[in-house]
Amino acid sequence: MSTPQVTIISSGEELITGHTADANAPFMAAHLTVGGLVVRRIAVVGDNPSLLRDELARATQDSDVVILTGGLGPTADDRTREAISQVVGAELAVRNEALEHVRRIIEGHGHKMTEAQARQAYFPRSAELLPNPRGTAMGFTCRIGRARLFVMPGVPSEMRGMFEESVLPALLAPGVGTVAVGTVNIFGVPESQVDARIADMMPEDRNPAVGLKVDDGVVYVCLRARAETDEKARALIEQDAREVESRFGQAVFGRNDTTLPRAVSDLLERHNLKVAVAESCTGGLIGSLLTEVSGISRFFLADIVAYSNEVKSSQLRVPAEQIRSFGAVSAQVAEAMARGACELTGAQLGIGVTGIAGPSGGTPEKPVGLVFIAICLDGKATVQTLNLKGDRQRIRDRAAKYALDFARLALLHRTRRK
Amino acid sequence: MSTPQVTIISSGEELITGHTADANAPFMAAHLTVGGLVVRRIAVVGDNPSLLRDELARATQDSDVVILTGGLGPTADDRTREAISQVVGAELAVRNEALEHVRRIIEGHGHKMTEAQARQAYFPRSAELLPNPRGTAMGFTCRIGRARLFVMPGVPSEMRGMFEESVLPALLAPGVGTVAVGTVNIFGVPESQVDARIADMMPEDRNPAVGLKVDDGVVYVCLRARAETDEKARALIEQDAREVESRFGQAVFGRNDTTLPRAVSDLLERHNLKVAVAESCTGGLIGSLLTEVSGISRFFLADIVAYSNEVKSSQLRVPAEQIRSFGAVSAQVAEAMARGACELTGAQLGIGVTGIAGPSGGTPEKPVGLVFIAICLDGKATVQTLNLKGDRQRIRDRAAKYALDFARLALLHRTRRK
Repeated sequence: MSTPQVTIISSGEELITGHTADANAPFMAAHLTVGGLVVRRIAVVGDNPSLLRDELARATQDSDVVILTGGLGPTADDRTREAISQVVGAELAVRNEALEHVRRIIEGHGHKMTEAQARQAYFPRSAELLPNPRGTAMGFTCRIGRARLFVMPGVPSEMRGMFEESVLPALLAPGVGTVAVGTVNIFGVPESQVDARIADMMPEDRNPAVGLKVDDGVVYVCLRARAETDEKARALIEQDAREVESRFGQAVFGRNDTTLPRAVSDLLERHNLKVAVAESCTGGLIGSLLTEVSGISRFFLADIVAYSNEVKSSQLRVPAEQIRSFGAVSAQVAEAMARGACELTGAQLGIGVTGIAGPSGGTPEKPVGLVFIAICLDGKATVQTLNLKGDRQRIRDRAAKYALDFARLALLHRTRRK
Repeated sequence: MSTPQVTIISSGEELITGHTADANAPFMAAHLTVGGLVVRRIAVVGDNPSLLRDELARATQDSDVVILTGGLGPTADDRTREAISQVVGAELAVRNEALEHVRRIIEGHGHKMTEAQARQAYFPRSAELLPNPRGTAMGFTCRIGRARLFVMPGVPSEMRGMFEESVLPALLAPGVGTVAVGTVNIFGVPESQVDARIADMMPEDRNPAVGLKVDDGVVYVCLRARAETDEKARALIEQDAREVESRFGQAVFGRNDTTLPRAVSDLLERHNLKVAVAESCTGGLIGSLLTEVSGISRFFLADIVAYSNEVKSSQLRVPAEQIRSFGAVSAQVAEAMARGACELTGAQLGIGVTGIAGPSGGTPEKPVGLVFIAICLDGKATVQTLNLKGDRQRIRDRAAKYALDFARLALLHRTRRK
């Protein structure tokens, strides 16, 4: 059997007017591609039922799989059922289990089900329903011509759940079987290098399938395994995840939804340590990233953003003499900031960052993108120098991430020392 | 003439594999919709030349305008020229002005132009070229069947420039004429209210066309005017912008690319004042937003993120007694934080924020989403209470934006007082 060809259709007036960018199709495309399917086309149409019908008719003729999202709601502009009824050439029929589902949710909110809401219980007669634990609109799958059609609500959280729980398993493991997924998350190694070092794990028909995704400097190695049982699929993911971890060592900061600040937070918890931050060019970004982690208040004491030299001296006790001799952007001042953060708060881990984010303020000796990052752990400080490229926002983003990563590596080495 | 129907085709393997979400099509769709055109369909295809050809052939039959981006580069997977040559049924021909453009850029980087790079100078014979001051690949426009086709590079910065400078003006003001655009930026008023209060400015064929866009709590009223001369178009924008400003008063924080932190920065400059921040639940986000503004170092002194109660007392001099009596999340502590920030740094404007971002830490009296924001200006403090909805990230984001907005309003009132 050749590789199944997939067409994704996203329907919704807000997508075609540019009000909202369609995030559903790229999400599905990434999972389908890693799973070894070929996405042939993504089509975005508005609430115009004849255009939607044309698109559906065309896709069910030239594709093996058609995935349609949106337009399953109770309002007048939700035209997906109508278009499907026209394409299959038959009236839709009510399904009691769906009617009960809609009623249960609406009555659970203390309302009575309206006639419009009851429309959400109508489906093609041959359809197999797809559960929606997150909303009233159930999805469904049926065959039209050569194609297998999947229809899901357009609300991203409902769509994602249904896609992962019902659609992907049906597509990736026909018959008995199951699918497991996982990611290994890497910082500090360029995408091209990650790609080159795991190229042998990426042949077309491999199981698990291995793919890459990059987001603001973080590289995600995406794994997807098919097997007869969930346990076997998860064992395959585990084996590959360990293989990737062994190749990239400490550049791996976590798996799945672990972020860099979460990795730092986990290590602080393991060592029972507190952190304090002193920032200049990153202006609060490091504190803001750390405090995205729920529960960080047990480990995070303070962040002193010392933008002016006076505040560096008055608040962080950086000697004015040092700022005069070496400049505010220097290894010496970064170290003094990290030490100051520890001394002021009693934290065992201090992070100090000073640099030139641009676009102005650079000199030939100290160009835009020059950043010093100091980590002070148990009274011992180390400073690293970065020469970052890009605009002001990119330089600040990468400086903050490197600062968190250096803190993470220092905490990892502490484990080794003990 | 009926409203022109537009099809947008985005081409690129990275779009169809889910590696990158297509941002070009939504960007264009928003501008086209505000300009009064109807986007019929957005189609995303990979580097497969026969699929691209099919898509082009179909679009040039059922649409008045077809806009295609991507695949104009020098590498083997850039197949757009090939597909167009097949659809028009003729070989492409070299254009000297394009060849010179490619050569000038490549030699300017100290390289010699390769044969592959020279391919970027080949176009359909009837094509009118579109300048690309940002890269080697020029765009072009030509007629195929009933449709006018525009082809642009897929690199977002190059595409956006070419779209705004060449494509939009050609579409929106056929013949002589020009187009001007502008936005009026509003915070603190829900989208539905903005919509209701300017509904009379939004009939279908009005000039300027008026539309809405919402991004993380900020509402943008988008204006687009057509006129014979640039001056007249800009005068129409000015008139509508003033009308919107008069309806929303101080909820308008700026126009066009003015952000909330930029508005605060501009007011600090006007008053020649310095600001210092004291944050708790927002964890550095306010400082991080303010320091996105290039040049803010003239007005921004420091941000003390006092997550622990000890640091609130030791660094910000919030009386421990006050924290015990009223709790760390209280109007009293917010005010003491704002005052502390001023006293520590000598700033005339202090911002103090404390609240419960969740998901844990809420109580019946102080639920998740409760946030106190204090503004201390020239020694006089005011505190406002927010009850924000949503998850941790949304509560933090809105708390930070409201803090900036309250600071902005305080600075505006200072102008009035003097």
